[in-house]
Amino acid sequence: MERLPGFRDFYPEPLPHADLWSADLRQRLFQTWRDVARRYGFREYDGPPLEPLELFTIKSGDEIVGQLYHFTDKGDRAVALRPEMTPTLARMVAAHERTYKKPIKWFAIPQLFRYERQQKGRLREHFQFNADILGEPDVAADAELIALLIDSLRALGLTAEDFVIRLSSRNAWHEFYLRHHGDPAREYDFFQTVDKLERDTPDATDKKLTALGFSLEAVSAFIRAGQPTAELQIILDNLAARGMGDYVKLDYHVIRGLAYYTGAVFEAFDRRGRLRAIAGGGRYDNLVKLISGNRVDLPALGFGMGDVVLTELLKASGRLPASHALLDAVCIIQDESLRPETLNLTQQLRDAGCRVDFALTPSKPDKQFKRALDLGAAHTVTLERAPAGNLLARVKCLATRQEQRVAPADVARLLMSPTPPRDA
Amino acid sequence: MERLPGFRDFYPEPLPHADLWSADLRQRLFQTWRDVARRYGFREYDGPPLEPLELFTIKSGDEIVGQLYHFTDKGDRAVALRPEMTPTLARMVAAHERTYKKPIKWFAIPQLFRYERQQKGRLREHFQFNADILGEPDVAADAELIALLIDSLRALGLTAEDFVIRLSSRNAWHEFYLRHHGDPAREYDFFQTVDKLERDTPDATDKKLTALGFSLEAVSAFIRAGQPTAELQIILDNLAARGMGDYVKLDYHVIRGLAYYTGAVFEAFDRRGRLRAIAGGGRYDNLVKLISGNRVDLPALGFGMGDVVLTELLKASGRLPASHALLDAVCIIQDESLRPETLNLTQQLRDAGCRVDFALTPSKPDKQFKRALDLGAAHTVTLERAPAGNLLARVKCLATRQEQRVAPADVARLLMSPTPPRDA
Repeated sequence: MERLPGFRDFYPEPLPHADLWSADLRQRLFQTWRDVARRYGFREYDGPPLEPLELFTIKSGDEIVGQLYHFTDKGDRAVALRPEMTPTLARMVAAHERTYKKPIKWFAIPQLFRYERQQKGRLREHFQFNADILGEPDVAADAELIALLIDSLRALGLTAEDFVIRLSSRNAWHEFYLRHHGDPAREYDFFQTVDKLERDTPDATDKKLTALGFSLEAVSAFIRAGQPTAELQIILDNLAARGMGDYVKLDYHVIRGLAYYTGAVFEAFDRRGRLRAIAGGGRYDNLVKLISGNRVDLPALGFGMGDVVLTELLKASGRLPASHALLDAVCIIQDESLRPETLNLTQQLRDAGCRVDFALTPSKPDKQFKRALDLGAAHTVTLERAPAGNLLARVKCLATRQEQRVAPADVARLLMSPTPPRDA
Repeated sequence: MERLPGFRDFYPEPLPHADLWSADLRQRLFQTWRDVARRYGFREYDGPPLEPLELFTIKSGDEIVGQLYHFTDKGDRAVALRPEMTPTLARMVAAHERTYKKPIKWFAIPQLFRYERQQKGRLREHFQFNADILGEPDVAADAELIALLIDSLRALGLTAEDFVIRLSSRNAWHEFYLRHHGDPAREYDFFQTVDKLERDTPDATDKKLTALGFSLEAVSAFIRAGQPTAELQIILDNLAARGMGDYVKLDYHVIRGLAYYTGAVFEAFDRRGRLRAIAGGGRYDNLVKLISGNRVDLPALGFGMGDVVLTELLKASGRLPASHALLDAVCIIQDESLRPETLNLTQQLRDAGCRVDFALTPSKPDKQFKRALDLGAAHTVTLERAPAGNLLARVKCLATRQEQRVAPADVARLLMSPTPPRDA
């Protein structure tokens, strides 16, 4: 029995000679994202992984159905596994909009699903860190959101050598389009052509632009000139005031593929890889109105960062987190008559918050010690009866091999003390 | 646009006048489960929420299909949203069994899905804490697993007044069945009758038992006598050695509904509610063999604890965790000319790990202060220029209303110091 193609199993640690993924790494990513989001005053939310299909077609049109896991449930409802989080967020906020003071700063870490045609190991699910601000039209919100994006990458050890935020603006391109008398009905075709400019050949781009009444030369000149709009300048100044100037640059190559962006747009790029986007987002001031059927009108902006590309970048830049000691101690039972006392000590240590394991059944002390090493324990703890009849605990630090004998009641404090280092 | 019936939205906090669920509470439950599992040396794993349908029918027969969210995907595969985690665990362990030293101690916190006929607000998804031990036939593993179950409930503040583990044994009932010359082909019917004994009327039970060649009186006498098997006595002694004797009692009413249990079985019961199970599990020594198509044979045992019943119990026993201060500080901008400096200070504080928010756009200091209270901040921090020209930060503790003026570089230390208390 195999798992479905395009899905991942998360073993505790990466399997030898297999892929990168593991539950430990995933948990570290999630914890970092949560910690950073909370530092920025963002609150966590989540919605169902299964939603009415219509929630996604309203936003993206029927063509998205071809990329979804969708089906009819036993109550005859057309449903789909969520391919993105923004429609759920818009639905949830619209349903209880008055409960919340603005701006609303929320984040989520959903698993998202797309049925894409399988290309050598292409995944059909990933986890995505989503952060959004709703109810604030000012570009100060754009700067706050981009700062969160920068810090969520920095918190993983990535630096300005590893990534850069390329900042752009739908408004800037809209004005360019108007200035050059573009056909209003074909503006989105134009945006999509610009979006593909770095991937298409110059000839192909030129052909598409000519058909829209533009020239590659004019478009390239606009990108090269790179004059920030007044809004973008405010965002850049705001980030500079935070000491984040090195992490962001104006770049009109970025325009974002989706139709619904309305203002500043941005992407976090891997500086070493070839223009690979790690995260992307922007302002979408009309989406809540669309999803809520004109009931609620809230300006909004957000970004998404997937776990797959990020993990590959962390690996390429040598910043996959090292694994730490997984156990504070293994209790070794040298004398089986002391098993009940060892169970009791194990319980005391666990009650004190220590991570402790022990041999469930009698086995040779050597074997128990070897297992302690295999499990990455920081210490072994062995109970023994002193000549006076009282119990003593022999605590051995596996990094330094130093031993101490202490009263059983003092073991927890010893294990939790910051030295010796707990890293294996 | 509404969410699907039977699914939950998780807002950051419970909505006023609405249900119990919130993302904050969910995260606290998950964190507690993770912490306790790690103290016991359990490692986290996860699998895909979507699996081949066959993975579930192999274990539970075709009748389970009626309770599943299942469909045919675009690659013509019969797939289902997972209704339980054990088949995925068995699949994963069987695929890489040789990688892992025994016993394997793993846990997961999956979201599970069942399409059950809607009964007044009955949910179709929940999250479940799953913990399993594989590769250890000795009952010492059963005791270790039950101890983890007890501690994961105690870590939420529940006591021996709130819950009890009712311990039983399929082996004990199997021997009873043989002793009374039960028909081997109908043993599972007998188990199911015993399983429903506390819910059915005595008459209904007696009728079913008589049809199987038993009497209610004999069954009730066996339950009343409550003589532990040798195996159960070892488990009870083991838990007593851990100081957990008060949390467990022998009770042959428990037999567990599922077919695949093979040894000790147990359920955690709400003592105040009427016999409501909070969690349940037991030994299933043949399941890995079944799922792996006889390739891998590993004894195993596990339990599952759902978030829904547990949350209701926490509420009923007044132990829903109180909410803490969500922000360490709100930076107040009294003088707009100091906005860049305030941005810079905010960044410094966030870099130091403080949770900090501020007004994105100019607004009256009073309004900013009120928002700090609304957001549950522990402090406000206001930059001001001292007569000598240098910057000072006025730090106000919102619990005590005490103010201090310190250099901006000292604010982080002040916010992170343990006193004054950070609870709002």
